[in-house]
Amino acid sequence: MFQFPIFFDVLSPRKSRACASVQSMQAQNPEFREYVRKIFESARFISHLGIELTDIEAGTCGTRLTVRAEHAQQDGVVHAGVIATMADHTAGGSAGTLLRKGQRVLSVEFKMNYLRPAAATELRCNGTVLKAGRTLTIAESEVFAIRNGESKLAAKGTFTLAVLDG
Amino acid sequence: MFQFPIFFDVLSPRKSRACASVQSMQAQNPEFREYVRKIFESARFISHLGIELTDIEAGTCGTRLTVRAEHAQQDGVVHAGVIATMADHTAGGSAGTLLRKGQRVLSVEFKMNYLRPAAATELRCNGTVLKAGRTLTIAESEVFAIRNGESKLAAKGTFTLAVLDG
Amino acid sequence: MFQFPIFFDVLSPRKSRACASVQSMQAQNPEFREYVRKIFESARFISHLGIELTDIEAGTCGTRLTVRAEHAQQDGVVHAGVIATMADHTAGGSAGTLLRKGQRVLSVEFKMNYLRPAAATELRCNGTVLKAGRTLTIAESEVFAIRNGESKLAAKGTFTLAVLDG
Amino acid sequence: MFQFPIFFDVLSPRKSRACASVQSMQAQNPEFREYVRKIFESARFISHLGIELTDIEAGTCGTRLTVRAEHAQQDGVVHAGVIATMADHTAGGSAGTLLRKGQRVLSVEFKMNYLRPAAATELRCNGTVLKAGRTLTIAESEVFAIRNGESKLAAKGTFTLAVLDG
Repeated sequence: MFQFPIFFDVLSPRKSRACASVQSMQAQNPEFREYVRKIFESARFISHLGIELTDIEAGTCGTRLTVRAEHAQQDGVVHAGVIATMADHTAGGSAGTLLRKGQRVLSVEFKMNYLRPAAATELRCNGTVLKAGRTLTIAESEVFAIRNGESKLAAKGTFTLAVLDG
Repeated sequence: MFQFPIFFDVLSPRKSRACASVQSMQAQNPEFREYVRKIFESARFISHLGIELTDIEAGTCGTRLTVRAEHAQQDGVVHAGVIATMADHTAGGSAGTLLRKGQRVLSVEFKMNYLRPAAATELRCNGTVLKAGRTLTIAESEVFAIRNGESKLAAKGTFTLAVLDG
Repeated sequence: MFQFPIFFDVLSPRKSRACASVQSMQAQNPEFREYVRKIFESARFISHLGIELTDIEAGTCGTRLTVRAEHAQQDGVVHAGVIATMADHTAGGSAGTLLRKGQRVLSVEFKMNYLRPAAATELRCNGTVLKAGRTLTIAESEVFAIRNGESKLAAKGTFTLAVLDG
Repeated sequence: MFQFPIFFDVLSPRKSRACASVQSMQAQNPEFREYVRKIFESARFISHLGIELTDIEAGTCGTRLTVRAEHAQQDGVVHAGVIATMADHTAGGSAGTLLRKGQRVLSVEFKMNYLRPAAATELRCNGTVLKAGRTLTIAESEVFAIRNGESKLAAKGTFTLAVLDG
C-alpha cells in the first residue's frame, strides 16, 4: 500500500541511504545558465582566486581551481578559507539555477567540515540544492582534493541562502 | 591514465554528484552490532522518547520513532529538539559501527538544517559516516517525516564525534 | 573623530572583545512577556522535559531544568539532545521577545558545540538575540551545567530563526 | 552558600548574560606571541589577502583588513569567503595563544553566520577561545564591517580546532 518514490525509500534504508535526498529539480528561469555564469564572472574575489565554473544543471553546479602558492596556509596545504570560498560560491551557483528571473541569493550562514588536509594541485567542487524554498534555499557542497590523478573528499559544507527579489 | 573509483568520479561530476562521498566502510569490531544496540538500549533519553533502532551496517545506522503528543512544539509539529536528538543519536550509532573494541564516541558539535515542518506520524532517520578518523568521526543524518504513506526529508545534520578509548 | 558605541569599540579590542556584540534591544510588542510564556506553555515537548522559563527581557530569555534520570545518555551525563532542545527553545524565546504582535519564529537551522560533558543536577540556559531582522533572527544560547553549587558552561549554540507573519 | 565566579553568575542571568562565558585564560608557552605571529606570517593566503595581526593576548587575537576591489562578490560587498577566511585564521590565532610549545592547531569545522552585508572599507576581527581542551579547542570570531567611522557586527563564527603535537 505504501508507495515511496525511489530516492525516498526509507523502508529499505540500506539501499537508498546515500542518495536519500536526491530529487529532480526544475529550473524556473530558462536562462539559468547565463545567470549562474554571471554570478561567477562578476564576483571579483572568485576570479581573483582562479575558481572556474565547469558545470551547470538545474539544482547543481560544478567548479574547479588550479591550486597556486598563494592559496596555501602555514603548513603548505590549501587554506580552509579558500575551500570555504569555493564551497560557498558553488553552493550559491547551485541555488542560482533554481531562481526565478530577477531573483538572487545571499549566504546567510554556512557550516564547513574539513575531512582531510587538502594537499592538492587541483580542487573540484560540486554544489547541490537540498531544498529550494520561497525565501530560503538549503544547499550542500563537496570539495575534492586532486593530486597525482587521485581525488579525495577534502571538505563538505551546508549552506543556507536567502532568496531575494531583485 | 586516470583511474577514479566510481563514486569519486569528479571528472564527470554530472553523473556522480549526489553519491560522490560514498565509500565502503570496514567494521573493526566484529561485534559492532551488539555495541550499537547497547548504545541505544542504555541511553535513557532515547528509550524515553521512543526512538528505535531499525538498521545497523558498517558505516550506517537507521532508526524510527512513532510520533506522540508529547513530541510536539507549540504549533503541533514535531519539536526541533526531538529531531535533533534522533539525528544525533543515529549519527552516533553510525560512528559506533566503525569503532575498535573498547572505544566510544561523544558528540563534540553538530549542525541541523530543518527543511520542512515535520507534520508526521512517524520519523525515520538514516545516519552515515562521512569520515572515520583516528580521533574524530564525521557523520551525517537525514530525518524523514512520514504521513499518509508519504516520506519527506524534514531535516539534515552534520556531526563531529570524538573517538575515545575506553 | 571616530565615535564608537561602547560595545563596538573595535579600535581597542582588548577591552571590549567579550561583549562586542551586545546591543540594547527594543521590544515591538508590549505584551512580549505573555507571548514568550505562551511559547513555553504550549510546547508539549518542553513541559514534558521539565524546561521552565525563568527570565524574559527584550532580546534575552532564561530557562532552567532539573535533571532527571530520563534525560541521561548511555554514559550517565545529560543527553546532547536535551541540551540542544533547551538551547533551541530558549533561543526561540529570546527571538520571540522582539517580534511584532502576530508574528512567530521557527528554527531553520542551528549549530551546537558541546564544551564539557554535562554531569549536572540542574541546567541553566541563556538565550540572546544577535540580530533581529525582518525575515530572519540570529540568536545564541549558552547552557550551564550546575552541580554542587558550581556552574560550568557545558554547551553553546547559534540559531537562525525565520520570522513568520501569523 | 552558593559562590559563583562573577562571570558565571547564572542565578542572576539578567546581569551576566552577555559575558557569561568569559574566563581568564592562561598561556602555556611564554613565546605564544611569536608563535601566533608566525602563524600569520607563514600563511601565504592570509598575507595575499592583506589580513594583518593587530592584537595578541592569552585566549584572544585581533586582526584587520583594508578592503580591496578583489575582495568583492557580485553585488559589491565583501565576499563571504573573505570574511570566513579572516574569522577562521583569527580564531586559529586565538587558539594558538594557549598551546604548549611544539603544538599546532588545525580547523576541523566551523560555522559562520552573516548578520549584515559587509559594505565596508575595513574589516576588524576578534577571535576568542571558548574552551581550550587537550585535543580540541573551541573558539569564536566576530567580524566587524567599518565604514565612515561606523563599526557594525557583520558576521560571527564558531570554530572547532584540533590540537596537534608537532
